[in-house]
Amino acid sequence: MPSVPFNWQPLAGDAAAGPRAGRLTTPHGPVETPAFIPVGTRATVRGVLPGALRAVGVQIVLANTYHLMLRPGADVVRDLGGLHAVMAWEGPILTDSGGYQVFSLSERRQVTDEGLTFRSHIDGEEVVLTPESAVAAQNALGADVIMALDICPPYPCPREAVGEAVRRTLAWAQRCLSAHARDDQALWAIVQGGVEPDLRRRCAEELVAMDFPGYAVGGVSVGEGHENLRRVLDWTVPLLPAARPRYLMGVGEPRDVVAAIERGVDLFDCVLPTRNGRNASAYTAGGMIRLRNERFKADARPIEPECDCPACRRFSRGAIRHFFQAGEMLGPILVSIHNLRFFTRVFGRLREAIRAGRFRAEAQAVLDRYAGSD
Amino acid sequence: MPSVPFNWQPLAGDAAAGPRAGRLTTPHGPVETPAFIPVGTRATVRGVLPGALRAVGVQIVLANTYHLMLRPGADVVRDLGGLHAVMAWEGPILTDSGGYQVFSLSERRQVTDEGLTFRSHIDGEEVVLTPESAVAAQNALGADVIMALDICPPYPCPREAVGEAVRRTLAWAQRCLSAHARDDQALWAIVQGGVEPDLRRRCAEELVAMDFPGYAVGGVSVGEGHENLRRVLDWTVPLLPAARPRYLMGVGEPRDVVAAIERGVDLFDCVLPTRNGRNASAYTAGGMIRLRNERFKADARPIEPECDCPACRRFSRGAIRHFFQAGEMLGPILVSIHNLRFFTRVFGRLREAIRAGRFRAEAQAVLDRYAGSD
Repeated sequence: MPSVPFNWQPLAGDAAAGPRAGRLTTPHGPVETPAFIPVGTRATVRGVLPGALRAVGVQIVLANTYHLMLRPGADVVRDLGGLHAVMAWEGPILTDSGGYQVFSLSERRQVTDEGLTFRSHIDGEEVVLTPESAVAAQNALGADVIMALDICPPYPCPREAVGEAVRRTLAWAQRCLSAHARDDQALWAIVQGGVEPDLRRRCAEELVAMDFPGYAVGGVSVGEGHENLRRVLDWTVPLLPAARPRYLMGVGEPRDVVAAIERGVDLFDCVLPTRNGRNASAYTAGGMIRLRNERFKADARPIEPECDCPACRRFSRGAIRHFFQAGEMLGPILVSIHNLRFFTRVFGRLREAIRAGRFRAEAQAVLDRYAGSD
Repeated sequence: MPSVPFNWQPLAGDAAAGPRAGRLTTPHGPVETPAFIPVGTRATVRGVLPGALRAVGVQIVLANTYHLMLRPGADVVRDLGGLHAVMAWEGPILTDSGGYQVFSLSERRQVTDEGLTFRSHIDGEEVVLTPESAVAAQNALGADVIMALDICPPYPCPREAVGEAVRRTLAWAQRCLSAHARDDQALWAIVQGGVEPDLRRRCAEELVAMDFPGYAVGGVSVGEGHENLRRVLDWTVPLLPAARPRYLMGVGEPRDVVAAIERGVDLFDCVLPTRNGRNASAYTAGGMIRLRNERFKADARPIEPECDCPACRRFSRGAIRHFFQAGEMLGPILVSIHNLRFFTRVFGRLREAIRAGRFRAEAQAVLDRYAGSD
């Protein structure tokens, strides 16, 4: 563990089996877990100023190494004072390793034991990403939590390819550990293994043997579905050390979140609240509402009367619909802010429920009320 | 004058000849004049939440009747609680009459003594705008200050056409007065007359005889240039009552503003700070800087070190450049906020200078420092 304060401390629940509440301490402050991590891909949660993030209870944000190393460049971010300065966000930040985006966004990629070679989706330039360069880029970006370079197989995927991904993910995790050069950042590892129980086990056990200060479950949210996600968590999470933070990557659907918290996961990142917000889809306790709908034209009520976010305290559904119809930035801005607040409120209720020993009832209440659509 | 508090009160300077400082009282609070009015065309200053407007010292905002009557419709705005509710802006609001936009945006327009007929630029539908319907729309929108329907001739324009515009502007002003139905809104008139001194005089004198609670100088900022603007002001402003507010429409260039304040104008609206902000052009005391420029890539300084706006207190030029390069909303948002602060600070300094009896020196200092470009 690094010399600066950096740990996860259990506060309530069952630290080994979950659900569990705790506190992640970082050089930029604490994160009460379970916690939701909004995605600020290019060093900004789209359209939302940091003051608004703080106002809706966001504790930690994620930025994408892949995007930032291509533009403006990890060294440029470092020269501008690091990610905290560029984002004007004083709280904790997490960066991914870039591997996932290489597979989802770039062209003509080649994978060798050395690393990944690909063409930038911006200008077509050839880029090489190795465990060492992924860590160097994240050292330059300066997030509090950084991730080891992994290989995330698609779903479905031949067992042999999943095995190859695990083999490389393990070798690269070791190289990332050796390359990591800043003790004010925590390097976490990512468990891969697809929907193969023995490969998940092997990956988890070998990563745990390397003694990382935190662990992510990766390779999910790639089309495997809710039941497979539960199975992956059942195989994987019990193998992770009870005293270390656990992060489920790219998951934000309420029923997935509930299932994961139940199994002892602490952290979740997901584009859903902001992506849906930009598309005028607002989360409410009664399900999603689509604010471009004609029926909201003269609706003077807020998105959710009981919500305390700046959008709900000041703006009507009709006004927000008008902003979307007119192509005004305030539409995406306001619904993103509301949706982030929806997520932080749900996570707050679930944390509170864990502390009060009534997680299952509260989780069921969330799922019962949240129907999923209008 | 209406029964609710609604007046302009001189506080310093030469109320008749200018420069003059004062206070405009409205049902939604005071406006210290001279004041800048940001443009919130479709009931939002693009990308800027009302809290940020307030934070950078904005006192009053403008919305465009033309845009709002077409979408979402003046009645929809009324049903949503009026413009103050839709904009979530508790301060004073001013709406224009829609006439100017009919000439600049719509197709197949016809002008008769009755009013304007045109095709909506949104869906091509035929719309009729008369003095009565322009006032009814503004009564429904519910701004504090509303404007009489006028005809704004282009520049250059044959003298005969300018005379016809003045004739109709005067007849319509009288009809607007008769149609106006809310005593919590002040209806102001607009002086037209192009660059014809006798037509400006006739229009001003006849409007003043109708006893409006405020007067605008219109038909400027249409290509006539700085020298013609000064001449128009020299002919027109001395004819306006010293005890009533004076508003110069669509003007925001620093040297135009200074010339107009010197001649006794109190209010100015202009799209420049926000439009330039959306294009990455930032006002600074040393002139405009264009933040997409490569030289700002690793510039860790704020736009203006001495500026107290949220953009300058938290974000570097390099970060803002990155947001523009990446197509992120935060670029336009942050530079719009900064530019609005630049304008409110300049107006604040000019108000202070008028109170201190040193307007000319301060105005010269503003113009000397503000070179106009990088």
